[in-house]
Amino acid sequence: MSVTFPRGFRAAGVTAGFKPSGHPDLAMLVGEPGTTAAGLFTTNRVAAAPVGLSRTRLAAGRGIGVLVNSGQANAATGPRGHDDAVAAVKAAAAQLGVEPDDVLACSTGVIGEPLHMEDLLPALPGLVAALSPDGGDAFAAAIMTTDTAPKQASAERGPYRVGGAAKGVGMISPNLATMLAFVTTDAPVAREDLQQMADDLLKPRFNALTVDACTSTNDTVLLFASGAAGGDPVAPGSPGWSGVVEAGEEVADSLVSQLIHDAEGITHVLLIDVDGARDETEARVVARAVADSPLVKTAAFGEDPNPGRVLQAVGASGADVDPARIDVWIGGVQLAADGTIPPAYFEDDALHGAAKDSMAALEIPIRIRVGDGPGRSRVLGCDLSYGYVRINGEYTT
Amino acid sequence: MSVTFPRGFRAAGVTAGFKPSGHPDLAMLVGEPGTTAAGLFTTNRVAAAPVGLSRTRLAAGRGIGVLVNSGQANAATGPRGHDDAVAAVKAAAAQLGVEPDDVLACSTGVIGEPLHMEDLLPALPGLVAALSPDGGDAFAAAIMTTDTAPKQASAERGPYRVGGAAKGVGMISPNLATMLAFVTTDAPVAREDLQQMADDLLKPRFNALTVDACTSTNDTVLLFASGAAGGDPVAPGSPGWSGVVEAGEEVADSLVSQLIHDAEGITHVLLIDVDGARDETEARVVARAVADSPLVKTAAFGEDPNPGRVLQAVGASGADVDPARIDVWIGGVQLAADGTIPPAYFEDDALHGAAKDSMAALEIPIRIRVGDGPGRSRVLGCDLSYGYVRINGEYTT
Repeated sequence: MSVTFPRGFRAAGVTAGFKPSGHPDLAMLVGEPGTTAAGLFTTNRVAAAPVGLSRTRLAAGRGIGVLVNSGQANAATGPRGHDDAVAAVKAAAAQLGVEPDDVLACSTGVIGEPLHMEDLLPALPGLVAALSPDGGDAFAAAIMTTDTAPKQASAERGPYRVGGAAKGVGMISPNLATMLAFVTTDAPVAREDLQQMADDLLKPRFNALTVDACTSTNDTVLLFASGAAGGDPVAPGSPGWSGVVEAGEEVADSLVSQLIHDAEGITHVLLIDVDGARDETEARVVARAVADSPLVKTAAFGEDPNPGRVLQAVGASGADVDPARIDVWIGGVQLAADGTIPPAYFEDDALHGAAKDSMAALEIPIRIRVGDGPGRSRVLGCDLSYGYVRINGEYTT
Repeated sequence: MSVTFPRGFRAAGVTAGFKPSGHPDLAMLVGEPGTTAAGLFTTNRVAAAPVGLSRTRLAAGRGIGVLVNSGQANAATGPRGHDDAVAAVKAAAAQLGVEPDDVLACSTGVIGEPLHMEDLLPALPGLVAALSPDGGDAFAAAIMTTDTAPKQASAERGPYRVGGAAKGVGMISPNLATMLAFVTTDAPVAREDLQQMADDLLKPRFNALTVDACTSTNDTVLLFASGAAGGDPVAPGSPGWSGVVEAGEEVADSLVSQLIHDAEGITHVLLIDVDGARDETEARVVARAVADSPLVKTAAFGEDPNPGRVLQAVGASGADVDPARIDVWIGGVQLAADGTIPPAYFEDDALHGAAKDSMAALEIPIRIRVGDGPGRSRVLGCDLSYGYVRINGEYTT
């Protein structure tokens, strides 16, 4: 049920015909009147037309629902792309009987290819007619591109429910797909508080994901609160806030985990934990450098512990670390102490064997301590496999 | 002849036994007394012991030659690694009959594994005995790790000769190898002028190389001037300076080209040219982001023009670019104008076909114009192939 697990939401997914495969490719999620919305968007300068549209409407305090298409990203499409996004949303709003500004937009698929308006517009009446409080599954299916499974999550705390759906982090389309996530709650939350929740709770979790260090043109996370659970507004410090936050964390953690486990060509998940940094930002810089290192990623694919590559990535990260203070553990096995790899690693079959065993697990924990500071961060990455190269390289237009 | 093409240098390469393969793995290059030296070193915080040693000696105005071993990188080896480097160079200097401070050091090979001093020390007498003005080829062969061929170059302008040798940019060893380059000239050049030549001429050329965005712990470029051509000192503005610079550029361009063409698993070289940026730094940021993008690199492997991935990389580079001002050409074919991919690209077989033909060449030129500014930069990259994943992933210790 995902996004429709919280009360006050309807969703649907249909086939408009954007995808040659004939799979569902047009989706809608809409809350009751009075629903509030917040969002997080790609930092890529080359942002898609729907990103600009949604960002503007949220900034103006609007948005009770969203129209999502997969197949064309509507990025690098120029003024025509903007006009298409506006027209699509306007037509959807008319079908819904709401103001045009109340509908947001997300797209995922091929960069540069114009939105197929000739398929989209005729599909809207059927999409709106299909909206249902049971439509979460259909919504989650219709936003997929190369995902191998839909990604949904739900959680409940006291009177409040939180639901979510997402799509990854996989692109065999000739250009580039993207990460989209949608989180709903039936708690009554004012717009400003909802944006704070998005910033504090969703942003660090979704930013902890890295598949190939490529920030997409379309990445979007939207958070909607219908208020359908009733009662007083829930705000920081008020009763119920911590419950909503907890449920939101549970949903976000689940979606992020589902996303990384379905990364392109994945054979191992990397759980990179950095601690002892000056601050969280510095810890994040180190963790991301390790998670994005092609040498660490290929070592993970080969199940080779390879502490030298971890140290190389830490040293090149740009973070202000003392090379003589770096400790590294792979699995539970310490493979560098004070910046030095123990010579026994190259001679001792037991030490090497223990490290190698850790690399055989689906999830490989790599812990890096860079000093005594308070900064810590976790980044979720994955290995770099033949599958990644095949998916992204062998496909040709 | 490479590094011994200029007069006043002797070189040698022998087998000390660091490599299981039995290939030559210990090399020396030494100039006549009075030789000046300059250097460029890795920016990685986790710098190898020989990097620290060479940097310190150059800063003190010393260095007439260098001892190079392949097999162990002597990085992440702690105080023992420093002591080993000092002892190795001291023993080499004794054999040569020069001051210990006059010998620099470079290492390449496995990170963390201690230098095999028990192999190194007994090999030094034979190495020094083998030093010869014809030893350039042996030197170039002994510094190789996973290079498929030695990299050498030479050029001559008027009375002055310049020579060079390098090793890449390829690592199947369990940890990490590195890029080492050595350039020699027989022009008489003062130390400060030689360092300026290294900074102005060698640095931008070697920094333009990117195989996998991983800055090694050992990267070193050394430049020696023996003065054996005789005559007055050559300095900026003096007769002969431009000739030496020209010859140096020719040698550096050749070495860099040989390095990228021998990158791990390479099937295509990427020539990324950015112009119209605010300044050179901004142009370099954009060019490097495109060259390092796994999505652009896999597209090159698949010979898929894919302008969307280029735009994605430009937008995510962090450079302050206007997305509506980006133009992209792949080969001679313009695939984005003012940030928009022409819709014809998705419909027009001729346009798409022409772009695809450009991708079939060994060297793929990608030009990106980001505005009207004066900043321009070229970066040399390569594709991301099954071969790269095999070399770096399948090898396990």
